[in-house]
Amino acid sequence: MSLKEMTNEQLSARVAELSAAYEEIKAKGLKLDMSRGKPGADQLDLTMELLDSVNPRTGYKTKAGFDVRNYGLVDGIPEAKELFAEVFELKPEQVIVCGNSSLNLMFDYISMAYSHGVGGCPPWSAQGSVKFICPVPGYDRHFAVTEFFGIEMVTVPMTAEGPDMDEVERLASDPSFKGIWCVPMYSNPSGITYSDEVVRRLAAMKCAPDFRIIWDNAYCLHHLNADAPDKLLNLYTEAEKSGNGNRVVTVASTSKVSFPGAGVAAIAGSPETVEQIKKRMSIQTIGHDKINMLRHTRYFENLAGLKEHMKLHAAVLRPKFAAVLDCLQERLGGKDAGQWNTPRGGYFVAVDLMEGCAAETVRMLAEAGVVMTPAGATYPHGNDPKDSNLRIAPTFPPAEELETAMELFCVCAELVCAKKLLG
Amino acid sequence: MSLKEMTNEQLSARVAELSAAYEEIKAKGLKLDMSRGKPGADQLDLTMELLDSVNPRTGYKTKAGFDVRNYGLVDGIPEAKELFAEVFELKPEQVIVCGNSSLNLMFDYISMAYSHGVGGCPPWSAQGSVKFICPVPGYDRHFAVTEFFGIEMVTVPMTAEGPDMDEVERLASDPSFKGIWCVPMYSNPSGITYSDEVVRRLAAMKCAPDFRIIWDNAYCLHHLNADAPDKLLNLYTEAEKSGNGNRVVTVASTSKVSFPGAGVAAIAGSPETVEQIKKRMSIQTIGHDKINMLRHTRYFENLAGLKEHMKLHAAVLRPKFAAVLDCLQERLGGKDAGQWNTPRGGYFVAVDLMEGCAAETVRMLAEAGVVMTPAGATYPHGNDPKDSNLRIAPTFPPAEELETAMELFCVCAELVCAKKLLG
Repeated sequence: MSLKEMTNEQLSARVAELSAAYEEIKAKGLKLDMSRGKPGADQLDLTMELLDSVNPRTGYKTKAGFDVRNYGLVDGIPEAKELFAEVFELKPEQVIVCGNSSLNLMFDYISMAYSHGVGGCPPWSAQGSVKFICPVPGYDRHFAVTEFFGIEMVTVPMTAEGPDMDEVERLASDPSFKGIWCVPMYSNPSGITYSDEVVRRLAAMKCAPDFRIIWDNAYCLHHLNADAPDKLLNLYTEAEKSGNGNRVVTVASTSKVSFPGAGVAAIAGSPETVEQIKKRMSIQTIGHDKINMLRHTRYFENLAGLKEHMKLHAAVLRPKFAAVLDCLQERLGGKDAGQWNTPRGGYFVAVDLMEGCAAETVRMLAEAGVVMTPAGATYPHGNDPKDSNLRIAPTFPPAEELETAMELFCVCAELVCAKKLLG
Repeated sequence: MSLKEMTNEQLSARVAELSAAYEEIKAKGLKLDMSRGKPGADQLDLTMELLDSVNPRTGYKTKAGFDVRNYGLVDGIPEAKELFAEVFELKPEQVIVCGNSSLNLMFDYISMAYSHGVGGCPPWSAQGSVKFICPVPGYDRHFAVTEFFGIEMVTVPMTAEGPDMDEVERLASDPSFKGIWCVPMYSNPSGITYSDEVVRRLAAMKCAPDFRIIWDNAYCLHHLNADAPDKLLNLYTEAEKSGNGNRVVTVASTSKVSFPGAGVAAIAGSPETVEQIKKRMSIQTIGHDKINMLRHTRYFENLAGLKEHMKLHAAVLRPKFAAVLDCLQERLGGKDAGQWNTPRGGYFVAVDLMEGCAAETVRMLAEAGVVMTPAGATYPHGNDPKDSNLRIAPTFPPAEELETAMELFCVCAELVCAKKLLG
């Protein structure tokens, strides 16, 4: 029964029931973590043989005979560029393969735009107030980067198709807007994949010559069901049709393919973008870890190899996502306490609780030993004006812990909503 | 006989002899590289077992049980912090262990000072013209970083004790000077280790509160003779005595200990410095490659292990340095064509040719198939006002190639000097 349709008496009774349930679970002294999109240990075990793929017996040379142990190849070994080119559906010469962190690549790109400018325009730091479009809910670490460089963030709501494009186009037409953060496939946290229409409008819209779409395609391989994957239009290809290739900066990594602590990340863009990044990078470093690149290319070989490997991850993750969604449906379904998505990939389930209930729900969970991503984290400056959105990360806890944590989540969420309605 | 004491007839005869020798060597069609401080393949072979030190059989946890495969520990695994703390003679909490490149750490530090400021002062980008002290000859990649951020570079000559401290103190007392580049041990390219007096003066001198000594201790373990190493006073400890700890930013890496393409780098400083770097870094990345850190700490264990390993490198390098120095002595000794140092460690031999002879010597070498570091590279903007300094990197070529290259070097250098004297 919907909480909203309950009488005060019914609500009070429900609050009493849920409070008792809460105290009972709290007494267990849980210590669980659903806060970050971290793979579980069982997922990390899937890739252990990769660590052996460059060793004293297998040798240390690229296919072209380059010794990966030494300095050189600032943009990565050729086979790694080819592998990411396949992933990005771009040419190898458009790809720079780097260290272990795509976040680092985005940070450095924004830093370069801040200090030196992009697209032949003055540095962002010299243009007065500059702004960024932030689809919300979104990825907290994206927002932290733009915040670090003092860039004003303006939110745009996510729809089931991607960001609200009427609003994005309206803002982007103002030349003080310099970019937009996008996780276009299985978005963080909503799990939404941008529609073809959204991609085409991003590619063609009017914006400043130094406006940049940061296309963080973190989950492009992360289908929960390889037989029914979401499909994402290639933004760069679309943008090129209108001569807008320079606006697209694409990144991805193998953090959730091989190891979050020791994967390989890549950045890609137009020839002009690649040239500018390489020029800076050749001052910043003599080269990234090429032994690790070779480990990855030997182990995965090509896109087909990556896709096969991702099926192993999906097999681990499907029951975890099912557990979360089943629990939500069973315990919160039809109660009007909140809404959630059913992602077909990625790392998160986003729940929009009744307004004003997110922070208190997280507080209660923490008090009972379950750490969640903080309420508000999916908004710039950690400020969700509706105090509604919560991000559930089902991947890290083992299955049974996840079920316990989700049971507690539903108890807390319903309890906070019921109390709210009681006033 | 000194070229300078020769008659024109003697010089002409010598030019003819050397020209013939040059043409003879040139006809061999050499293809040799003495341009960069790259370890030779025989050195890289010394560390191959390190690659096996984290594998499916050895496991993937730190001593404290942290799974290095996953996200986390933005400042590095504890044992890696301990290892570098031993190297730096600092406390582990003063150390941040990162990716594979100390150059990257210096670039990022300067970038942070540029965009956000350090020491509680305004960003360097907001302070009008800011300047850096560049001891010359120095490391070209240092100069490239300050050039990238538009920082004016003012040179100071190196003496046998380190940079000319009278001049350094004079410049540093001007608050528009924001730092100095230092390779304090077996300096690049001169092979000089800073004297205690120089270190103490750097530690105590007057300078702006956001003046930073970039202490690039790249060669601190790189003695050619472990029994007779140079000794370097600890700058941070000295600076702390005067309450100046914040001015010291120390970096090093294992690039020339394990693998240039896949080592581990670290940055260290005062508590305030470490806090500021960690704060930025936690926005820039979720963490560096911890599997690679664990490989290194398991393989080397501690400073004693590093020192033992460096003896293996030294055994490979001693004959190469001897070949370079013997050739210089034998072919250029007593001729007044140039001067050079006899380094006790590091990666280079620096030669100061007669003024106006460096660029032409490099050109002739290139024409005969031997690539050198470009003349001028050891000066900011590649501009050696005397056109005199050349950097010889003896490590990369195999021994017999090195001898051929050095023979050619001496022929070219003497020939260019003799022609110069002929006018």
